[in-house]
Amino acid sequence: MITVNIIGAGNVAYHLYRALSLSPEVKVLQVTARDQRKLEDFVNPELINTDFSKIKDCDVHLICVSDSAIAEIAKAMFGLNGLVVHTSGATSINLLHQLKRYGVFYPLQTFSKQRDVSFSEIPICIEAEQKNDLALLKILALKISNDVREITSAQRKTLHLSAIFVNNFTNHLLHLGNEIVKQNNLDFNILKPLLKETVMKLEDMPPFEAQTGPARRGDQITMKEHLAQLSEENQKKIYTELSESIQKTYGKEL
Amino acid sequence: MITVNIIGAGNVAYHLYRALSLSPEVKVLQVTARDQRKLEDFVNPELINTDFSKIKDCDVHLICVSDSAIAEIAKAMFGLNGLVVHTSGATSINLLHQLKRYGVFYPLQTFSKQRDVSFSEIPICIEAEQKNDLALLKILALKISNDVREITSAQRKTLHLSAIFVNNFTNHLLHLGNEIVKQNNLDFNILKPLLKETVMKLEDMPPFEAQTGPARRGDQITMKEHLAQLSEENQKKIYTELSESIQKTYGKEL
Repeated sequence: MITVNIIGAGNVAYHLYRALSLSPEVKVLQVTARDQRKLEDFVNPELINTDFSKIKDCDVHLICVSDSAIAEIAKAMFGLNGLVVHTSGATSINLLHQLKRYGVFYPLQTFSKQRDVSFSEIPICIEAEQKNDLALLKILALKISNDVREITSAQRKTLHLSAIFVNNFTNHLLHLGNEIVKQNNLDFNILKPLLKETVMKLEDMPPFEAQTGPARRGDQITMKEHLAQLSEENQKKIYTELSESIQKTYGKEL
Repeated sequence: MITVNIIGAGNVAYHLYRALSLSPEVKVLQVTARDQRKLEDFVNPELINTDFSKIKDCDVHLICVSDSAIAEIAKAMFGLNGLVVHTSGATSINLLHQLKRYGVFYPLQTFSKQRDVSFSEIPICIEAEQKNDLALLKILALKISNDVREITSAQRKTLHLSAIFVNNFTNHLLHLGNEIVKQNNLDFNILKPLLKETVMKLEDMPPFEAQTGPARRGDQITMKEHLAQLSEENQKKIYTELSESIQKTYGKEL
């Protein structure tokens, strides 16, 4: 049995709490955050704690707060004997170096409270200074995922940056696509098979080969017409930047 | 039985040829393109034609060439009695107005020859001036797809523009994400669960709600660090434009 604490009440805390609670070999001892109401939304009342000076010791403390709050939270955990890990993609393990035992437990996924996720396929990137701590993180991660990887802070930083392109920016493009069809009273659902194929295609070929469209062909006429169709300044800028980047990638003249 | 001709040897011609050939109620009479070798790659030798003055008449002629070549091809088809349609998202039906009977048959999907697609889920957008022509296109489209929609040229133009964001630009972001991990000797596969979830999430919520990440939070420190990590100018520009657009969308200060 591994005992864990969760610190935080956001999307990552919510999903790790649920996933870990479901494992018969993990016991969540406590979930700590300042905002009691946020905790009440999803945490068993007996496990709720809002006083950072009253964190109970356990095997693994999972800090699931925004990047800028990690250092502050870590200060409240100086005296603990348990392994303290953060769950951030962009933050170095070194931020926690003043603690006795520290590491990283980063699930590479996008989380929203409104949506269930199946943890078993989510890559969990682990890192620790001490071999026994790394082993402990591996055992814990394998309780909820089949894809556990040892990843250094530098590698994790790269993965996180790439994830911004793959998830954050992609999702924003989908939002813009949705806005464009909505402005013209059309149904976004008609674009979903295209979106699914965009992703499925990558099982057969790298995105470099999968690229199609006017920018890839260097079709200036269509690109000009598209720009004229767009009404919002941000849409125009993004259309221009991405089209130029595609043209450069395939050696087309601008 | 509906008889059809296909004009073109590119990705759309290839996939329409395959889908239509598989329908027992459609007969492909001829496939016409200048480049014999391209046709030989996928067309039954008996159906190959490279002489545009020798196009046989039939029920529906499907022009599957690049947008800029449609007008030129249409000239070779003046004398025909069959319904002549183009398959372009960005081109108005009016480009064909000098023909006796004309229309549009636009499958909203991204096609590559290296990858099979299941036509049954692909939305086919049809348009024609005459009611009986529209009815004929509907019957033909339903032979290969379950999702057939009457869409005007103006609507189709909007869908095509939105599809550029949803497919072309998204795919390029995936390419950039791939480049970033490759430059650091990491495996793009680790990002695939994230990518899949990005798309699956939209079954539960619109992309506006699904947005996460530093730009959405207005986290300037992480954004600055990301920019410093990026080595290529186009990556930096795209990071900046998309982050600004996200911040504006959620009312964050730049």
